[in-house]
Amino acid sequence: MSVTAAKGFTAAGIAAGIKGNGGPDLALVVNEGPRRAAAGVFTANRVKAAPVLWSQQVLKGGRVAAVVLNSGGANACTGPEGFQDTHATAERAAGALGVDAAEIAVASTGLIGVRLPMDKLLPGITAAAGELSAHGGEKAAIAIKTTDTVHKTAVAEGAGWTVGGMAKGAGMLAPGLATMLAVLTTDADVDAAALDAALRDATRTTFDRVDSDGCMSTNDTVLLLASGASGITPDPEDFAAAVRSVCDDLSRQLIGDAEGASKDIRVEITGAATEDDAVEVGRSVARNNLLKCAIHGEDPNWGRVLSAIGTTSAAFDPDKIDVAINGIRVCRAGSVGEDRDLVDMRYREVRITVDLAAGTESAVIWTNDLTADYVHENSAYSS
Amino acid sequence: MSVTAAKGFTAAGIAAGIKGNGGPDLALVVNEGPRRAAAGVFTANRVKAAPVLWSQQVLKGGRVAAVVLNSGGANACTGPEGFQDTHATAERAAGALGVDAAEIAVASTGLIGVRLPMDKLLPGITAAAGELSAHGGEKAAIAIKTTDTVHKTAVAEGAGWTVGGMAKGAGMLAPGLATMLAVLTTDADVDAAALDAALRDATRTTFDRVDSDGCMSTNDTVLLLASGASGITPDPEDFAAAVRSVCDDLSRQLIGDAEGASKDIRVEITGAATEDDAVEVGRSVARNNLLKCAIHGEDPNWGRVLSAIGTTSAAFDPDKIDVAINGIRVCRAGSVGEDRDLVDMRYREVRITVDLAAGTESAVIWTNDLTADYVHENSAYSS
Repeated sequence: MSVTAAKGFTAAGIAAGIKGNGGPDLALVVNEGPRRAAAGVFTANRVKAAPVLWSQQVLKGGRVAAVVLNSGGANACTGPEGFQDTHATAERAAGALGVDAAEIAVASTGLIGVRLPMDKLLPGITAAAGELSAHGGEKAAIAIKTTDTVHKTAVAEGAGWTVGGMAKGAGMLAPGLATMLAVLTTDADVDAAALDAALRDATRTTFDRVDSDGCMSTNDTVLLLASGASGITPDPEDFAAAVRSVCDDLSRQLIGDAEGASKDIRVEITGAATEDDAVEVGRSVARNNLLKCAIHGEDPNWGRVLSAIGTTSAAFDPDKIDVAINGIRVCRAGSVGEDRDLVDMRYREVRITVDLAAGTESAVIWTNDLTADYVHENSAYSS
Repeated sequence: MSVTAAKGFTAAGIAAGIKGNGGPDLALVVNEGPRRAAAGVFTANRVKAAPVLWSQQVLKGGRVAAVVLNSGGANACTGPEGFQDTHATAERAAGALGVDAAEIAVASTGLIGVRLPMDKLLPGITAAAGELSAHGGEKAAIAIKTTDTVHKTAVAEGAGWTVGGMAKGAGMLAPGLATMLAVLTTDADVDAAALDAALRDATRTTFDRVDSDGCMSTNDTVLLLASGASGITPDPEDFAAAVRSVCDDLSRQLIGDAEGASKDIRVEITGAATEDDAVEVGRSVARNNLLKCAIHGEDPNWGRVLSAIGTTSAAFDPDKIDVAINGIRVCRAGSVGEDRDLVDMRYREVRITVDLAAGTESAVIWTNDLTADYVHENSAYSS
């Protein structure tokens, strides 16, 4: 049900001709109200795409009437002309919907460094506005796919209210504050400040802890829009839990569809002195190409886990670290532990658990293996 | 000529049976004097192999009589027993050579987390001591290979003195203070402090700026031994230049033989506010898997360069960055520049030049492309 699971939203997804292959490439999500509160988190990459710069300004107002999303081009590193293209996109949507352009968020995904074909995109917005429907969520989710093999949607139900969402992302997948593109909607009656708190809390431990390939995008955007159409203001904790649930579900779907991946790897760091230490160690392990190759080969090469931990500034004593792979403690006290041949790695999910023996904090980072298919897909991407 | 190019050194390389395939796996390099000054730099990885911990202690004395090097096992993450194995190695070499074990450096390379077969290694040391020769440098260089396809040696000649060296390394190749294993020798009459200064100066801009796969080893060791056999004390700058020349030559050989690589990529960062900024940006670009895949596909995907720069803390304005690939300025002022189809990427060496337009400092980082062969080689390594 995607972004139209919650009441008060319409959406559309169409093929505007932005992609060379004629596939769906333009999505429109409209908040029909009565409320139009919104929050957003964006990439921490200092090289930000034009739509990110635009939408950051829009979100400062705490109101979003609609979101225009396109695949087929990131509109990143396109200079002042690229920013004007985003502005024109917002103006066209504002005109079609009879709202103010300052309440139109824009999100783009695709190749960096190429101008968008505005002669296709602008008529596409008009066409999409004509196809808006309270059942359009799936089509919208399909239209934002790039190398994704499946579209991603999730829903969490509250007591009389709903949070739904869609996301795309399969490569350049190491969100710095958000993932590639995601839009969440709710009919709960929640103001912008509460939306912001719930969204930041949720993304911090979900999208932010997905690190498929260590490469942070220029376009990461996660938006949360509230229509208030249910007339219900939920308990803040219940609402935060629902938003977290949808973000977590979408994050896992991103990992499950990562480019070329054959394994989903859950790296859990326990016994850390601080949560930041746990995240730093988890990310270092998740980004170690040699380990990711080993996991692809179903090789429980824990030495590569240790060598990755050793590059961090986290608190630990190398002689106290334990590492388990799929439950077998192959490294005990920094040295050889249980027989590595006991580790069963036949299944897609692989669990690496590190105990730093330096405290009580923990964190989970999700990543993927490194495969020849990843190399192939990303050697040929822009051609 | 390797480590025996300089006078006052003997070496040997033999098959001791450490490697399962029966290949050469044990090298011995002996400083015959009259001087036995030495300096060393070691991995910055906080998880250090037993031989690194041992040799760091030895080098504190500024004297090294001999170096024992083995391939076929890293002796890393092997606990107190592993350290005892290194100690026993030094004792056996000391006995065979009639010197003090506190002047025996040890270096190991191979799989992490496996004990060395001491029943093979110790007799091997005795055998190697019996084969020491002033022409043994090549055999020593061959015996330290792991996944290297070729052995690596280099020589620089001064006025009556020589610096020679050998190195190994093909994967887990992102030295933190050194590369995998390297031994340099000289017959110049130089004390330990001057050796240390020359070696640190040289490695800082050579081995330290090789970043093939972003993975820092537990065993990186670079040693510089001086015999004084030429009787000449060179001008310090001449000597430093010779050491730098040998380190640079060996570093480039490491990149040229990196696991699975089809491209050697020279990432030059100019216009940086500080040298540290230039190195940080260069390393971020060098470690970007998506860019490394694109280069493998001969795709001048400069957007991936920009997205990597954006993850750093270096001083820059995204709208002022220029990027050239093989001389074609494909990105100008952070946006689309010259036609990317003009970039010729058929050859092994690829040059990426980034102008941050933020100052006058610069740095060069060398890396490789990411290939299916790299994945294959590192999926099957420990099997």
